[in-house]
Amino acid sequence: MSMDATLQGTGEFGLIDRITAGLAPDPRVLVGPGDDCAVLAVAGRSVLVTCDVLVEGRHFRRDWSTAIDIGRRAAAASMADIAAMGGTTTGLVVGFGAPADTPAAWAVECTAGLVEEASSAGASLVGGDVVESPVITLSITALGEASGSGPVLRSGARVGDVVAVAGRLGWAAAGLALLSRGFRSPRVLVDAHRYPVPPYSAGPWAAAAGATSMIDVSDGLIADASHLARASGLVVSIDTADWEVPEELQSAAAAFHVDPREWMLTGGEDHALLATFPAGTELGEGFRAIGSVVAGSDDFDEGRSSGVQVDGVIRSADEGYRHFTGH
Amino acid sequence: MSMDATLQGTGEFGLIDRITAGLAPDPRVLVGPGDDCAVLAVAGRSVLVTCDVLVEGRHFRRDWSTAIDIGRRAAAASMADIAAMGGTTTGLVVGFGAPADTPAAWAVECTAGLVEEASSAGASLVGGDVVESPVITLSITALGEASGSGPVLRSGARVGDVVAVAGRLGWAAAGLALLSRGFRSPRVLVDAHRYPVPPYSAGPWAAAAGATSMIDVSDGLIADASHLARASGLVVSIDTADWEVPEELQSAAAAFHVDPREWMLTGGEDHALLATFPAGTELGEGFRAIGSVVAGSDDFDEGRSSGVQVDGVIRSADEGYRHFTGH
Repeated sequence: MSMDATLQGTGEFGLIDRITAGLAPDPRVLVGPGDDCAVLAVAGRSVLVTCDVLVEGRHFRRDWSTAIDIGRRAAAASMADIAAMGGTTTGLVVGFGAPADTPAAWAVECTAGLVEEASSAGASLVGGDVVESPVITLSITALGEASGSGPVLRSGARVGDVVAVAGRLGWAAAGLALLSRGFRSPRVLVDAHRYPVPPYSAGPWAAAAGATSMIDVSDGLIADASHLARASGLVVSIDTADWEVPEELQSAAAAFHVDPREWMLTGGEDHALLATFPAGTELGEGFRAIGSVVAGSDDFDEGRSSGVQVDGVIRSADEGYRHFTGH
Repeated sequence: MSMDATLQGTGEFGLIDRITAGLAPDPRVLVGPGDDCAVLAVAGRSVLVTCDVLVEGRHFRRDWSTAIDIGRRAAAASMADIAAMGGTTTGLVVGFGAPADTPAAWAVECTAGLVEEASSAGASLVGGDVVESPVITLSITALGEASGSGPVLRSGARVGDVVAVAGRLGWAAAGLALLSRGFRSPRVLVDAHRYPVPPYSAGPWAAAAGATSMIDVSDGLIADASHLARASGLVVSIDTADWEVPEELQSAAAAFHVDPREWMLTGGEDHALLATFPAGTELGEGFRAIGSVVAGSDDFDEGRSSGVQVDGVIRSADEGYRHFTGH
């Protein structure tokens, strides 16, 4: 069998492309696959819905994170997607798979973490399914409602918009680097890897402030800015010259002899929100400007005219984590 | 570690009880865990939501079922839960985990099966997540809307109600018995194991006809009737004397020297709908009477006064498939 014939060959996004190509249009599906959430008309109202799956050994390790932290992280990943549409999460549903010899206390604490994180965003755990599986798997579906002005998609950026981010960049990557080398401190960075602190309220704020596009930064700033840029058919131009690099990242980066800006550009899992606003928008709720939207050019790979440039240099969308292909 | 401290010790329902005990009340959660679906108020409307997880080797085998059949079955399990609330499914979200060496065509065909089954019930696949996992895992969340008269719960049965069932009983169990012994026919029974044919339209029909309670028969008639009986605090009394046993089941049962009624009483996975109706209700849409609701008695185990009796004999709720405990 050729590489291309396996999921390793097609990759996550290739598989999703093949699946979505086969879907028939449905007037009740207001936004289909390809954005942070789908938007579905149920009983005449728009419902935001999104799903994230976490697998032990791939998305978490029980020796690095407590059950509560893993539950928090699982809930955060889905609720950040709701926020990235400008919405608020109402409820979570969890599909939980685990081996029969899993400590019941671990499962209960993991769920308590889910409930705690949901509660921090004003949401509730409403149901789920529990099955036996050879590997601990958490599949979290979040349901939410859009802001009054409707969902903020990835595709609405316009030339001249300000590019802004709310929430942390690179903290989880720094924490992972520390843990991978056996360090358990600084605590704030290690904790950032254990569970993110998404800026949930920044999502509805951005929608109300007129954000033209928005995305959850889960794969890394460059990777997710590329998704937004491609969906909008434009270029996201990021300038790092004026970035304030948090002291915690500077110290850790110095110890590893790396540039902390690279963690901020390529590290995922912090679930910051990346949004574009009309020029002149007064930014609040933690949003700070990191660049601007410029017209497409012919400088991108694979015949694309959209993508990301950082300090004037084109960067590849692949500079973030991909499933199956492992890079 | 003692048995009770693992999921094998607590079992699926024990774990769910421990989890739900920790949930705070939320006025937007109109129906919480414990019924076929949760009912959540989103944007002021009731949304039905339910989740089912299928794991390779436990819920399906790739050498017994095609990818399309497995996709169909996964979608059917969740959509039958929506029907069991008297609702109709609007959209499905899939969390898909698989090893990197999984054929991409398998994943695409499995999803095509999901889409096909969704379409048969008037629903669409609206989104999901794709991740690498050591075991193929399908986590399906279905969203739907209740009928005009509201969701039909498990807890509303009343003494004197007629107990009725729509859809197949025991067909999947017969199919599994055949496959387990190396048979590939009769095709109709083998196919019944490969994917169910839930009576989706019977759910909203029952709601409109005034059903007092309803449940999806996924674990087996006795097991699921016990859930309904306990939720209602009453006894479901089933009479098999007048049952018409389908010819297909009679033939297969004769070959295995078993009573086909036992398949019909204990076999799961057919996703029939079990409902109670006020006495005198004219049954339609495939519903046939199989018994009646009677008052609780002291004859049940564990201090319970509710449960199931078949032909006057009390039967255990454990006569169906349980996760973790393996019986």
